[in-house]
Amino acid sequence: MTTMVQEKNVTVPKKGKQIYEGKAKKLFETDNPDLVIQEFKDDATAFNAKKRGTIVGKGVINNKISAMLFQLLEKESVPTHFVKLLSDREMLVKRLEIVKVEMTIRNIAAGGLTRTTGIPEGTKLKKPVLEYHYKSDELDDPLINMDHIRELGIATEEEMKQIDKMTLKVNELLKAFFAKAKIDLIDFKLEFGRHHGKILLGDEISPDTCRFWEQGTGRKLDKDRFRRDLGDVEGAYEEMLKRVSEKLS
Amino acid sequence: MTTMVQEKNVTVPKKGKQIYEGKAKKLFETDNPDLVIQEFKDDATAFNAKKRGTIVGKGVINNKISAMLFQLLEKESVPTHFVKLLSDREMLVKRLEIVKVEMTIRNIAAGGLTRTTGIPEGTKLKKPVLEYHYKSDELDDPLINMDHIRELGIATEEEMKQIDKMTLKVNELLKAFFAKAKIDLIDFKLEFGRHHGKILLGDEISPDTCRFWEQGTGRKLDKDRFRRDLGDVEGAYEEMLKRVSEKLS
Repeated sequence: MTTMVQEKNVTVPKKGKQIYEGKAKKLFETDNPDLVIQEFKDDATAFNAKKRGTIVGKGVINNKISAMLFQLLEKESVPTHFVKLLSDREMLVKRLEIVKVEMTIRNIAAGGLTRTTGIPEGTKLKKPVLEYHYKSDELDDPLINMDHIRELGIATEEEMKQIDKMTLKVNELLKAFFAKAKIDLIDFKLEFGRHHGKILLGDEISPDTCRFWEQGTGRKLDKDRFRRDLGDVEGAYEEMLKRVSEKLS
Repeated sequence: MTTMVQEKNVTVPKKGKQIYEGKAKKLFETDNPDLVIQEFKDDATAFNAKKRGTIVGKGVINNKISAMLFQLLEKESVPTHFVKLLSDREMLVKRLEIVKVEMTIRNIAAGGLTRTTGIPEGTKLKKPVLEYHYKSDELDDPLINMDHIRELGIATEEEMKQIDKMTLKVNELLKAFFAKAKIDLIDFKLEFGRHHGKILLGDEISPDTCRFWEQGTGRKLDKDRFRRDLGDVEGAYEEMLKRVSEKLS
């Protein structure tokens, strides 16, 4: 598993103390207050952490896939938090004040959309469906709307318009990119944050945060293999890394 | 309990067979295909009919309150399905093709908003919060957004813009009206439908579909007394009929 990553000419800052540990990643301070190190773990959770496990090698794969996709998006003028890959599991990123909304965007019905609305899994949507989910483990990441975002003080209407636009653009770019790799991009979630007043795409883009179905066979190449006990979870992640690497080399 | 109802000069059509029975109302055909009779029951349900009971006299009260409020709204140029009161429990209305969205509008946090977002009950909202809930008992009336409405084929964007505008206008009118009766209008739900291509306000407006808190004391004068076993449910409904009648007489 090798990846072609064009690294920017940035002095690598010194890794400081851990400032956050999430379900799949840790964040560390650096001696530059504008930069943090994002470290990818092999821990896997589903259903708001009611299901837990390990996907061996996932952290390495998600780090590499995310790095490649962030670079692809940067080239297309989507500003991201990505600075450079530091190691197999570590990525240097710009420090963000996270906007507490998970942006979900869907091209084909699956998962939460099917559960919420009854639209059968696999239905091709007329247009991309955009959803706001409030980032709150306690409340189980509920679907919310712009009025709720305003009342919760999560973001301004102006910021959300910009985030909507960026999410739709990322969807178009990634849909086209994955199609070349014979993968249908079913849905995915993005997170954004503020960095010196500018909205940047943050978090990760990986089989943990996207649904990927192989064209023709419909084979699932994402975290649904773990969620739904479909077997060969590691193989699916490795396959996605291979396809992304090939198309970007 | 007497009410002042200005009745329109309409020939009363003959009551035909029952075409629908819901949780709180029945609908009957008439010999005029454009008109149906809406009959109000005393049956009370909550939590998607997991809790059931009877509120004696509720049907009579909700019929009368709804009639008065529909007339008040018509005077302010809000088109409704109301035609005239027929009896204590019956109202003649225009036949609607119901838009399968419950429009919830909120001025103060309570109920589902508190459960979904964690905003504490009683919090005054900066602006009215509008929510779309998909009318589906099977799916438990989930919160949805305009993208879901489009994919489900529930209504057009144009229709929803008009329904949003009507809902906000009804909220302003009713908030002002109930304030005169020393009642805070916390939140309520409206339903709309199509009648010969025109969007009309339908369903009912009553203590079953609104949260009413007495100003000063915070005493709940609505279905929450039934939902939360607060006692004196009938008294609350009677009090609301009295206050509405007084302010409209």
